[in-house]
Amino acid sequence: MYRNDGIRELERQECLRLLAKAPVGRIVHTRHALPAVLPVNFGLDGDGAVLLRTSAASELARAVDGAVVAFEADEVDPLAHSGWSVVVTGPAAVVTDPGEHRRLVRGGPRSWAPSPREVFVRIEPELVTGRELVGGFSMYGLDAFF
Amino acid sequence: MYRNDGIRELERQECLRLLAKAPVGRIVHTRHALPAVLPVNFGLDGDGAVLLRTSAASELARAVDGAVVAFEADEVDPLAHSGWSVVVTGPAAVVTDPGEHRRLVRGGPRSWAPSPREVFVRIEPELVTGRELVGGFSMYGLDAFF
Repeated sequence: MYRNDGIRELERQECLRLLAKAPVGRIVHTRHALPAVLPVNFGLDGDGAVLLRTSAASELARAVDGAVVAFEADEVDPLAHSGWSVVVTGPAAVVTDPGEHRRLVRGGPRSWAPSPREVFVRIEPELVTGRELVGGFSMYGLDAFF
Repeated sequence: MYRNDGIRELERQECLRLLAKAPVGRIVHTRHALPAVLPVNFGLDGDGAVLLRTSAASELARAVDGAVVAFEADEVDPLAHSGWSVVVTGPAAVVTDPGEHRRLVRGGPRSWAPSPREVFVRIEPELVTGRELVGGFSMYGLDAFF
C-alpha cells in the first residue's frame, strides 16, 4: 500500500529479493565515536545474512566485529524520482569457524581488492526493512509544489 | 598516489567535485541507539555543506537536528570493479534563520516527495573524505587470487 507521500514499506522477502540483485551496498558502523559508512560488494547467505569479504588486517574487520551495524543497498532513478532502499540491521561478526570459512571461500562473495589473508564478516539479518519511492510526483512538475 | 590495494585517498576539493555530480546520497545517523541509513537527494552549498530538504514533521528532521551525522555518495562500476565514495561528516541542523530559509527555497535542493511544510537540513562539512577504487585487479581475473 502506498502512503500519500509515494513511499511504500517493503516486506522482508521483498527486501531480500531486491538485495540479491544489488552489486554493492554500504556498511554503516561507528568509528572513533563517529558514524562511518563504506561501500562494499557482498553476498547473501541462505537465511538473509549479509556476507562481506575483507582483509583480515583491515580496519573494517576490526571496527565491525561484535558490533551492531546497518547494511544498506539501493537503486535510484534520479530522473523518474523513483527507487528502492533496503537496510539490514544486526550484529556483525568475523567468521571464525574453519568449516564455515571453507564453505564461504567456495560459495561466498569475491573481493574486488584481494589481499593475501582474508576473512568473512557475517551480518545477522535481525531487522530487514525497506521502502520504495514511486515517482508519480515528477509527472506534475516538482516546482509546482513549492 | 595509489596504494597497492588499488585504493586512492581523495583530496577535499576532489571529493566536493564528485559530490556535486551525484544525484543522491545517503544520510547516516543513529535511531533508537541503532545505526540508520536513508537515501536522499541533496544539494551542495558554496562552502561544501550538504543540504537536504524534508518535511518539517519527518522523523529524519527530528533524528538528525543537532546530531553529528555522515553523508555518503558513491558511484560504482560493478563490472570494472572501480568507483569512488565520498563521505561528509559533521553536525546537522535544521535551518531556522528565515533569510537563510528563503535563500534555500530559491536555490536549494528540491523534494522528490513534496510535503506542505518543508525544512532544510544543513550538514557542516567538518570532515570530507573520499576514496577511489581502481579496478586494475579485474584484468587478471579475480578468481586467480583465491
